[in-house]
Amino acid sequence: MKNTFGNNVSVTLFGESHGEAVGAVIDGLAAGIEVNTDFIASQLNLRRPVGSISTPRVEKDNFKILSGVFEGKTTGTPICIVIPNENTHSSDYDETRFKMRPSHADFTANVKYNGFEDYRGGGHFSGRVTAALVAVGAIAISALREKGIIIGTHISKIADISDRNFENIEADIKALNDMQFAVLDSQKGEDMQKKINEVRAEGDSVGGVLETAVCCIPAGVGEPWFDSVESMLSHALFSIPAVKGVEFGAGFSLAQMTGSVANDPFEFVEGKIVTKSNNNGGINGGITNGMPIIFRTAIKPTPTIAKEQETVDIRDNSNTVLAAKGRHDPCIVHRARVVVDSVAAITLCDLLSAKFGTDWMAK
Amino acid sequence: MKNTFGNNVSVTLFGESHGEAVGAVIDGLAAGIEVNTDFIASQLNLRRPVGSISTPRVEKDNFKILSGVFEGKTTGTPICIVIPNENTHSSDYDETRFKMRPSHADFTANVKYNGFEDYRGGGHFSGRVTAALVAVGAIAISALREKGIIIGTHISKIADISDRNFENIEADIKALNDMQFAVLDSQKGEDMQKKINEVRAEGDSVGGVLETAVCCIPAGVGEPWFDSVESMLSHALFSIPAVKGVEFGAGFSLAQMTGSVANDPFEFVEGKIVTKSNNNGGINGGITNGMPIIFRTAIKPTPTIAKEQETVDIRDNSNTVLAAKGRHDPCIVHRARVVVDSVAAITLCDLLSAKFGTDWMAK
Amino acid sequence: MKNTFGNNVSVTLFGESHGEAVGAVIDGLAAGIEVNTDFIASQLNLRRPVGSISTPRVEKDNFKILSGVFEGKTTGTPICIVIPNENTHSSDYDETRFKMRPSHADFTANVKYNGFEDYRGGGHFSGRVTAALVAVGAIAISALREKGIIIGTHISKIADISDRNFENIEADIKALNDMQFAVLDSQKGEDMQKKINEVRAEGDSVGGVLETAVCCIPAGVGEPWFDSVESMLSHALFSIPAVKGVEFGAGFSLAQMTGSVANDPFEFVEGKIVTKSNNNGGINGGITNGMPIIFRTAIKPTPTIAKEQETVDIRDNSNTVLAAKGRHDPCIVHRARVVVDSVAAITLCDLLSAKFGTDWMAK
Amino acid sequence: MKNTFGNNVSVTLFGESHGEAVGAVIDGLAAGIEVNTDFIASQLNLRRPVGSISTPRVEKDNFKILSGVFEGKTTGTPICIVIPNENTHSSDYDETRFKMRPSHADFTANVKYNGFEDYRGGGHFSGRVTAALVAVGAIAISALREKGIIIGTHISKIADISDRNFENIEADIKALNDMQFAVLDSQKGEDMQKKINEVRAEGDSVGGVLETAVCCIPAGVGEPWFDSVESMLSHALFSIPAVKGVEFGAGFSLAQMTGSVANDPFEFVEGKIVTKSNNNGGINGGITNGMPIIFRTAIKPTPTIAKEQETVDIRDNSNTVLAAKGRHDPCIVHRARVVVDSVAAITLCDLLSAKFGTDWMAK
Repeated sequence: MKNTFGNNVSVTLFGESHGEAVGAVIDGLAAGIEVNTDFIASQLNLRRPVGSISTPRVEKDNFKILSGVFEGKTTGTPICIVIPNENTHSSDYDETRFKMRPSHADFTANVKYNGFEDYRGGGHFSGRVTAALVAVGAIAISALREKGIIIGTHISKIADISDRNFENIEADIKALNDMQFAVLDSQKGEDMQKKINEVRAEGDSVGGVLETAVCCIPAGVGEPWFDSVESMLSHALFSIPAVKGVEFGAGFSLAQMTGSVANDPFEFVEGKIVTKSNNNGGINGGITNGMPIIFRTAIKPTPTIAKEQETVDIRDNSNTVLAAKGRHDPCIVHRARVVVDSVAAITLCDLLSAKFGTDWMAK
Repeated sequence: MKNTFGNNVSVTLFGESHGEAVGAVIDGLAAGIEVNTDFIASQLNLRRPVGSISTPRVEKDNFKILSGVFEGKTTGTPICIVIPNENTHSSDYDETRFKMRPSHADFTANVKYNGFEDYRGGGHFSGRVTAALVAVGAIAISALREKGIIIGTHISKIADISDRNFENIEADIKALNDMQFAVLDSQKGEDMQKKINEVRAEGDSVGGVLETAVCCIPAGVGEPWFDSVESMLSHALFSIPAVKGVEFGAGFSLAQMTGSVANDPFEFVEGKIVTKSNNNGGINGGITNGMPIIFRTAIKPTPTIAKEQETVDIRDNSNTVLAAKGRHDPCIVHRARVVVDSVAAITLCDLLSAKFGTDWMAK
Repeated sequence: MKNTFGNNVSVTLFGESHGEAVGAVIDGLAAGIEVNTDFIASQLNLRRPVGSISTPRVEKDNFKILSGVFEGKTTGTPICIVIPNENTHSSDYDETRFKMRPSHADFTANVKYNGFEDYRGGGHFSGRVTAALVAVGAIAISALREKGIIIGTHISKIADISDRNFENIEADIKALNDMQFAVLDSQKGEDMQKKINEVRAEGDSVGGVLETAVCCIPAGVGEPWFDSVESMLSHALFSIPAVKGVEFGAGFSLAQMTGSVANDPFEFVEGKIVTKSNNNGGINGGITNGMPIIFRTAIKPTPTIAKEQETVDIRDNSNTVLAAKGRHDPCIVHRARVVVDSVAAITLCDLLSAKFGTDWMAK
Repeated sequence: MKNTFGNNVSVTLFGESHGEAVGAVIDGLAAGIEVNTDFIASQLNLRRPVGSISTPRVEKDNFKILSGVFEGKTTGTPICIVIPNENTHSSDYDETRFKMRPSHADFTANVKYNGFEDYRGGGHFSGRVTAALVAVGAIAISALREKGIIIGTHISKIADISDRNFENIEADIKALNDMQFAVLDSQKGEDMQKKINEVRAEGDSVGGVLETAVCCIPAGVGEPWFDSVESMLSHALFSIPAVKGVEFGAGFSLAQMTGSVANDPFEFVEGKIVTKSNNNGGINGGITNGMPIIFRTAIKPTPTIAKEQETVDIRDNSNTVLAAKGRHDPCIVHRARVVVDSVAAITLCDLLSAKFGTDWMAK
């Protein structure tokens, strides 16, 4: 259903980069979940630009909760959070109204909306809309934490610099969640930031891979067909701008293994059935098996770059060139991290509510 | 919605591997689309086991159309196709009722369904259910062809043997669609089959990667958030058993590129806006840009293998070993190919109907 | 979503009156619910034609469960039930292919499906499709009974003959559920049947009103906006052919009352909050209040009648007359009773599963 | 999906009576539809209280469009409209926090949301939330008008005073749409207002019936099962607070007719197939037949009244009495009129978009 996702817990997104505001409605969360506005603010802060490795457009992100929260707790009715747009330079986009930025949504938006789209700053396609996702996602993350379910994402790769893998997942997640540039190996983090500064200096951009772990989710969540955990998570993840790949567990490398290597043997340990390895990323047959959910998300390089690129001018269908003005991110991987956590949390709240009922999250 | 997927065109799956039948209902297809039962049969045939590289369980797949087709054409009402199960050896599964096959859905099904699941042959989680998807998918594929939209998938990789990439996409698709073992380079196909036979001889299995191209789809299809083309396709693809990764265009390798390399420059050629490269796989901002849609699907090795594996017996929660009996596929990549085509076709019919209306497909 | 209804428990309908079969898929029911095939058969029997007051087309209704049931219990996966069509006289409909039966769906089907509809016997619009709804609905009814929730419907009115109102609701429901012609006052039932025979003798038909009670449903089920209990039930009820009105509690007569008369005062009785009257039919603000849900469903007279009627011939757009041949019901109110129970049960299973989780029904 | 309704065009509602704001997101409307803010304001004005026959709480209803509109036209992306709450007297509700107003949602909200609901002024259940529906509905009404489809509702009945029926539907609709108290017979309108003043003087309230006509909608819209026009409209209508009955065409009175009287004969007139009567309210088999859609909506008397009523105090589960303070409507029928138009317009935009595609409304 277009800009709405989820069945039992759902989220609806609205807003344009240079319009009044961006916002989101999250519906279906249990009544009685504590809403910590400081935590929402800190999550928004993790998504905000960081020094030279991000866009100079810095928004205050003064979010406003319009509904669904009363006396500091969720009421069980839809929560709408709105974030006004303030620091907009709309004139930066006069040129791109007609000169389509390669690999951005300018052209497809123009075709889809017959020229009526708000073209300024990518309009409704802008990464800015993810601020609203992060705000409502923060409530979902809090709700999961109350049930002992924690989510963490690190920057697994920028260009060809790789962070170390998850080791002690619970400890790793806890360490990651307050970092502005979330890596498990701080040296690799510095190398990555240096790399980002290099491409920025060249008027270019760079992509990367995020790796996410979800810990302590019960077994038996998800559906065999269509609403498998992988299906639902990937559906949500692929709607984040710039995501071009999603894999679970060992993912694409599983494809090269034999079954005897790839399979995760079960064993009975301390009263619980676990698996010895976790190549399936905690999901068998689309259903959680109780092991950590592990997935990786490929983020393409920001398409808007200062370097001159070939493109078309749709006013006269002429071939032309474009060197983007405006304020752009040389890399959005580190900023996307908290967006990934947010959509994962919302999706898992949805699947958990389907299994355990609306009120489960607040019990 | 659990075993149902799609908004304007939707599919509902039912059936268990060793029950009466597997089947599917496809709803929302326009009235007046020709239904070619020979084509349905040939698609089912492409999914069936092939000689020594597949399971010895060979089903006749005598499908029956129960509704929605009248005088050889779709009526516009739901089409139910049923495929009876015939060649079942249910006793093969007496052991796995309690000894959970590693990385199969035995354990998660047991937890999710509290022990009431039909455990025989994987029950509702069985790849056999995809036969029904292929049957209804064949009608979607036919409908798209009538509009000039064609889909083709090749086995891009088995273990570490890689097929060549798509070159002339339209010609490549046409060549692929009648092959039982669909590769673009026949030598590589022979190598792959040899590899499959080797792992089979060792009581093992092997995975691979499928690559799909969709040609001649109009620009402007899909939604920016949540129902992006990538979101919808990945949602459908990840519900196919054994799929653990999905990537679009250059996918995960995009993550390592700079923007100036990754971006697909627009150019105006023969009255049409096209892109010079197609690293984004025909999708910008979640919306088709008119270039071929390209995606790759990672298929893990079949989890059921003859080799002995460690696991648990849930009768007494003891650690034990299991060497699977029954008839199993050493590789399902080549059989999954037509399943991928089917879910892609159904998903695209859904998105196209949203944009152009119910009747568009039949015009 | 077209021929599918429900979120957590959903039903998908397929089939045409004179095609291979009619059928339904019910998905989302908990695993472990007992499936009593005798009860399904008895429910189908209650829907079947009765002597002279119904159509002479009598179907054996030999239903077949294709999936989702194993060792006598639901597996938690989709249950498909198919009922083959046997006693079809398709030639009866050669004339109505072009002469549109007034107030039937012949004309609207022809416009909607561009002439590709299966016109025989009303095709997919036929009341025959409700047999499949009754079959899957029987499982929902059983599941609710296990939780102490019971549903019963009586023929409140045929023409201007009225049955008595519900008094002792639990006892009344129990008495109704085995009756072929379900009335609370048997004398009124005889008068109604006499009336039906009279209109039949005149080549005419007659409508009526059904009144339904649902007993012992917990308070707190439903949603304030859009998925209110009234919204969901009416959505399901209005898709039953011939239904033209739905009202809850005192319904339309509430509209003429003052608040002081219409309001249902709360009182605390034996440890429970109840209402002294039940003019709101057990629903306040779209949410159950724990009192019996009461609603009435208006059923129009069967549109197909032997009497000559004016209509058009769409071959040449001429005005013409039509005296329907074929086998028709002079009244369907008594047969619709069990269909109403079925859709109500499915809808309530859906709403209860949303609140209490998937497994609640089987606990 | 809880507080969201619709498939191709959908609406999501949020907000509480005494919170920050009420609001709605409408998604799926075509790009390029003109958005007339004066018309939105005038529709909101029609919903506002009128002199002595309404509540003294008068809100300015200063709506703000946050997204989806650019240069005066829809962009095709979600439109969020927010209406801040200003004139709130929250202390009026201190008593009803624990003393449940009979037939209001206080009790069911308390059960459903476990005491975490915003109880002030009915919270999310308040009729105030319909202001947001009216604001987004105004855009849907405008869009339909551009296609020649017009909607109008009159107060068919207050207590036992009846307005005349629709005669010349197009002219009647045009006359109604600017009236604050919408009746076809002005004398009856005065009688009704006198009646409302009488019940107000007695500290009581009164209900009524609204009758709606939709003119010039194409034939062939809707679905046979579940998403029938009646199902979809009733789903939307029954989510409006106080609605307890919905009937189409002759509705409940159809139930007492014979088929030969009830049926609407087709005839060919001036190149078009029409019906001589319209007892089916423009819908056959759930699909529009091209005649005006006619339906009636029963509105119960406002449950909050000044008269003393019996109820319970949930603090100690004692029986008590309540004479409501606060500002209440003695009748909401006249105010609900424009809400009915709004949900009807949104529902029809949804069904039309399903049939004709997203862009149809803007062509």
